[in-house]
Amino acid sequence: MDDPSKFVLEKMSEVKISDLVQPHIRKLEAYTPGHQPSGEGWIKLNTNDNPYPPSPNVTEAIWGLDGSTLRLYPDPESSRLREAVAALHSLNSDQVIIGNGSDDILNLLIRAFGGVGGAVGLSFPSYSLYPVLIGIENGQTEVIEFQREMALPIEQIRNCSSGLFLLTSPNAPTGVGFGNEEIEKILKIYSGLLVVDEAYADFADESAVRLLERYPRLVITRTFSKSYSLAGIRVGYALAAPETIGFLDRVRDSYNVSRLSQTAALAAIEDQAYFQNTVGKVKQTRDKYQVAFQKKGWFVYPSQTNFFFLEPKNAKGEANQKVAKSLFDHLYSHKILVRHFGSHVLTSSFLRITVGTESEMLALSEVINSWQTTV
Amino acid sequence: MDDPSKFVLEKMSEVKISDLVQPHIRKLEAYTPGHQPSGEGWIKLNTNDNPYPPSPNVTEAIWGLDGSTLRLYPDPESSRLREAVAALHSLNSDQVIIGNGSDDILNLLIRAFGGVGGAVGLSFPSYSLYPVLIGIENGQTEVIEFQREMALPIEQIRNCSSGLFLLTSPNAPTGVGFGNEEIEKILKIYSGLLVVDEAYADFADESAVRLLERYPRLVITRTFSKSYSLAGIRVGYALAAPETIGFLDRVRDSYNVSRLSQTAALAAIEDQAYFQNTVGKVKQTRDKYQVAFQKKGWFVYPSQTNFFFLEPKNAKGEANQKVAKSLFDHLYSHKILVRHFGSHVLTSSFLRITVGTESEMLALSEVINSWQTTV
Repeated sequence: MDDPSKFVLEKMSEVKISDLVQPHIRKLEAYTPGHQPSGEGWIKLNTNDNPYPPSPNVTEAIWGLDGSTLRLYPDPESSRLREAVAALHSLNSDQVIIGNGSDDILNLLIRAFGGVGGAVGLSFPSYSLYPVLIGIENGQTEVIEFQREMALPIEQIRNCSSGLFLLTSPNAPTGVGFGNEEIEKILKIYSGLLVVDEAYADFADESAVRLLERYPRLVITRTFSKSYSLAGIRVGYALAAPETIGFLDRVRDSYNVSRLSQTAALAAIEDQAYFQNTVGKVKQTRDKYQVAFQKKGWFVYPSQTNFFFLEPKNAKGEANQKVAKSLFDHLYSHKILVRHFGSHVLTSSFLRITVGTESEMLALSEVINSWQTTV
Repeated sequence: MDDPSKFVLEKMSEVKISDLVQPHIRKLEAYTPGHQPSGEGWIKLNTNDNPYPPSPNVTEAIWGLDGSTLRLYPDPESSRLREAVAALHSLNSDQVIIGNGSDDILNLLIRAFGGVGGAVGLSFPSYSLYPVLIGIENGQTEVIEFQREMALPIEQIRNCSSGLFLLTSPNAPTGVGFGNEEIEKILKIYSGLLVVDEAYADFADESAVRLLERYPRLVITRTFSKSYSLAGIRVGYALAAPETIGFLDRVRDSYNVSRLSQTAALAAIEDQAYFQNTVGKVKQTRDKYQVAFQKKGWFVYPSQTNFFFLEPKNAKGEANQKVAKSLFDHLYSHKILVRHFGSHVLTSSFLRITVGTESEMLALSEVINSWQTTV
């Protein structure tokens, strides 16, 4: 203890890293992304990615990129991509913001608009990332629960005291779509900012985009991860009033989207023929298997997305959490990954299964049949 | 007014978007990134990117990528890249976190550790993004100002009451490097988390990485944007104690780094020969022009980075904000972009000029000479 600096060093070593982290972060549970197996031979029906590859335009655009340009920062405004997105939706580019995935956009929305009115409104079930993002902000949630029929609780949302409400439409994980007539009923009286998270809207019959011109407090979020088969490049966007976009831009990282991702997304959006074809194929497979599952006597919500939320029954006709878990485990043991949200009564007897290719769905069916004979 | 819903709609229209945004966001000023000119013929010495292209490995790796894999989400852990970074620094991969640029990492640090102790400590001048990120969190700053000689104010940092201190070393925009002996003096007594932002450390004589094993409250941030010539792909990282990395991971977006960017960064890190060569060339040019500017009788901080912070003098030997602005404008009119931080007495008489290629530096010199004859 002769050396005074050594004494101080020992005292200092008592300050723990956990003493220095914000208390609400210390308590936080991280979001659990869908399992990404590293081995071969898996059929991945657990993260709602598209079973078809992206447009060949994307690969060509990336191959055509001059590698030496990567030394320079990307366009901080993602200008060309923003203009293409705006044109696609018949909007102006000041109504568009591009994100590092739509998760980036949701994060910006919660950071800029969350907490006004005391909490952030959301429904249950919906995208399980929302409460995680709100928790990171040390925010409160105002949760409106669906009933089993999954009808939109319009009155409850309109009466919500939060200044920001996050609505997943079509809903995840149920796949149920909400029509514009219903969404408009909320917009007419809810006084906050209504975010309609349209991650799956390209697979649905209707989109709320056309409501933007009449409702300035509407925000639509979209992603390239599902319908454009580009989960790997991390690009999403929001459509909103220019003033809303301006506030989100203040919170956005200047260089949030890389040169490679801007290039890839632009190439994908420019190949609408491929896009329509891919989405059409997914919908066709979906509609066919929707009927097939129902024919088994299983309850399946009518899917407006690229996944099913279905309630499996065992040979005795029982449907419950244990039955769902049993099918999950059986599929897993046959290297088929699906998703089970076991923590809530509204979801625990269900499995969420992404629409795969025809051959993947055939394999799924066979493994399901083999399970049914054993339980 | 007969239609009651119309009445409500009109009333609702009085709620403005600016009423719904968080008050501190409404007041926020966005970060101003360096100007990215869209036209041809510019010499860009304003954003400290590398004048040399990235390793040919990068282009090859991107070309070699199977485009169909882009339909799948990226590895949420950036595992291969994290392992390569860890190996490069002789660390374990649980001491590494990968970000969407080091700006992403800084954002995570401020969100997880900012505000403990009441504020976030930083020096002035330093990276101008810090106060913006702190402002987005509605946080306070505890600013420790350098004196003109830019010596590290060790005592003041040690006495800082904030639980998080952000130190840019080598400093931006001055280019001055701080030795480990000095940084260790802070670490020995400062009880908070010390972030050493080493964006430019590959151009410096020393790095604080080797201090990590003895000081668990040290965090080092790095970027691929400068020394690896990859500003366009947005990859940065932090090196820290596993516990610190764990907390940052709770705040990090699961899929923050795209497949393309993980691939590109990995390819770059695997070509250390190219990396060393490029960094060597930049340093050689830097050292040569450091002397050249000094020979003019101009004050230039000794640069440990890939840029100069120099105080131009006009023909009368005057150095002040007006003189600096005059040279800035002259360079701009000759399509040479540099950076001027005019708002503070410590920086306003200076220009920050990125080290370019030999031919860019020659062009810069000629334009500077033509300016000197006119003022």
